Amino acid sequence: TQQLVSEAVPETPRARPWRVSTADRSVRKGIMACSLQDLLHKVRDILMLKDKPFSLVLEEDGTAVETEGYFQALAGNTVFMVLQKGQKWQPPSEQGTRYQL
Amino acid sequence: TQQLVSEAVPETPRARPWRVSTADRSVRKGIMACSLQDLLHKVRDILMLKDKPFSLVLEEDGTAVETEGYFQALAGNTVFMVLQKGQKWQPPSEQGTRYQL
Repeated sequence: TQQLVSEAVPETPRARPWRVSTADRSVRKGIMACSLQDLLHKVRDILMLKDKPFSLVLEEDGTAVETEGYFQALAGNTVFMVLQKGQKWQPPSEQGTRYQL
Repeated sequence: TQQLVSEAVPETPRARPWRVSTADRSVRKGIMACSLQDLLHKVRDILMLKDKPFSLVLEEDGTAVETEGYFQALAGNTVFMVLQKGQKWQPPSEQGTRYQL
């Protein structure tokens, strides 16, 4: 089970801008969030994922972002990808040339 | 008549310059706006989109800009793209080399 430990964030950081993409890269949204938990909540609402388990990874290389500390160390406007159950990160080039395989 | 909702923005920010492109990148306009709502109104007037639904995305990667907070976090002179119903963001290179595929 996922639990965010409050000690991880000493003082409430201010909201920063992030970009969140769907796994197929067809939709990308600009979202303000001050914490990983805040971003997870907003992604769930904006992409209508209520009751659908999902995780956030970095869009560029699929790195799983699971802790508040790692999230806070990211630069603003980092691009995340939402992975729902069964979805896997794929590099952009592979998606673009999918029909060549 | 144009009316800006004050609740959307805690304090009225001053107008900043933005660039707005059509989906085919054939037209690009410089527009001053203090808020997302202000920009949407001006884009509607300048590109004659009255009664035509449209959204604004970032020209660089198609990120949807849908909230005042995310808009305010953007740097001035950010380039937007107008997407009307049925239009999809495409990367610049793909548009330029489309006929080579």
